[in-house]
Amino acid sequence: MADPGAAGPVRKAVLAAHQGFYDAIETGDLDLMASLWADDDASVCVHPGTEAITGSGAIRRSWAMVMAQLGYVQFILTDVTVALVRDAAGEPVTAVVGCTENVLSEAPDGTDAGFAGGRAVATKTLVRAAGGWKVLSHHASPVLMPDEDDEDDE
Amino acid sequence: MADPGAAGPVRKAVLAAHQGFYDAIETGDLDLMASLWADDDASVCVHPGTEAITGSGAIRRSWAMVMAQLGYVQFILTDVTVALVRDAAGEPVTAVVGCTENVLSEAPDGTDAGFAGGRAVATKTLVRAAGGWKVLSHHASPVLMPDEDDEDDE
Repeated sequence: MADPGAAGPVRKAVLAAHQGFYDAIETGDLDLMASLWADDDASVCVHPGTEAITGSGAIRRSWAMVMAQLGYVQFILTDVTVALVRDAAGEPVTAVVGCTENVLSEAPDGTDAGFAGGRAVATKTLVRAAGGWKVLSHHASPVLMPDEDDEDDE
Repeated sequence: MADPGAAGPVRKAVLAAHQGFYDAIETGDLDLMASLWADDDASVCVHPGTEAITGSGAIRRSWAMVMAQLGYVQFILTDVTVALVRDAAGEPVTAVVGCTENVLSEAPDGTDAGFAGGRAVATKTLVRAAGGWKVLSHHASPVLMPDEDDEDDE
């Protein structure tokens, strides 16, 4: 079952793969992005506001298109949560990572407007493979109805 | 690693839990909904267009609010995909399920408009627990930019 604590080296390795995902987007490194995904016909990627893309090959092609269209972009991640799932032997096999993506990007059309800001929420499932933690699903979506009360708990 | 085939009884059990999730919404059964979630401080739920809600307690309260506001609603699921993650012994421990939610609901404000339709994309991570497959994360988001070409693959 899930281990909310997820402390120590396992959590660190999961978050390193998670950070690599955003490094890949910021630097436009498609090879790095592709290397972070699990090779699976049923892997899932949802870019904000779009339908799901299924399977490693189609997902790689979608990132090539996204990266070709992106100018300067920077992600500041907040509200990062990690849930770890362990097998019967206590070994971590899966991690669910949630975060808020605070995105700083070039204003469109090369105008003098400078930078544009945006916010999305993302959930990823990572699985432990021989080559490290790999992304099996990534779902990002725009925040259209911000929570005015930052505290979900009473 | 992930097993895209996901055939047979395991896939069937995963999809039964997945269907239970939508049965719970359609019938406004909060106890059923709560019973389908893993008890985890880092479980994640994203309702369409909103920020993430973290932890079993806050997620249950969010569903109570959603259900209190819903009138008639019916989900027709399409594009359902299942990726299975197995442990070293070959036992399935995690499943990632993607789907399109085609939503039929009452038109707002009790007008004579009848029904309203909508479409969202959802990704869930389920984990195998003693009591069956439980939802560790659910992320749903509106489809703002429909894919005009239904084939993601060339």
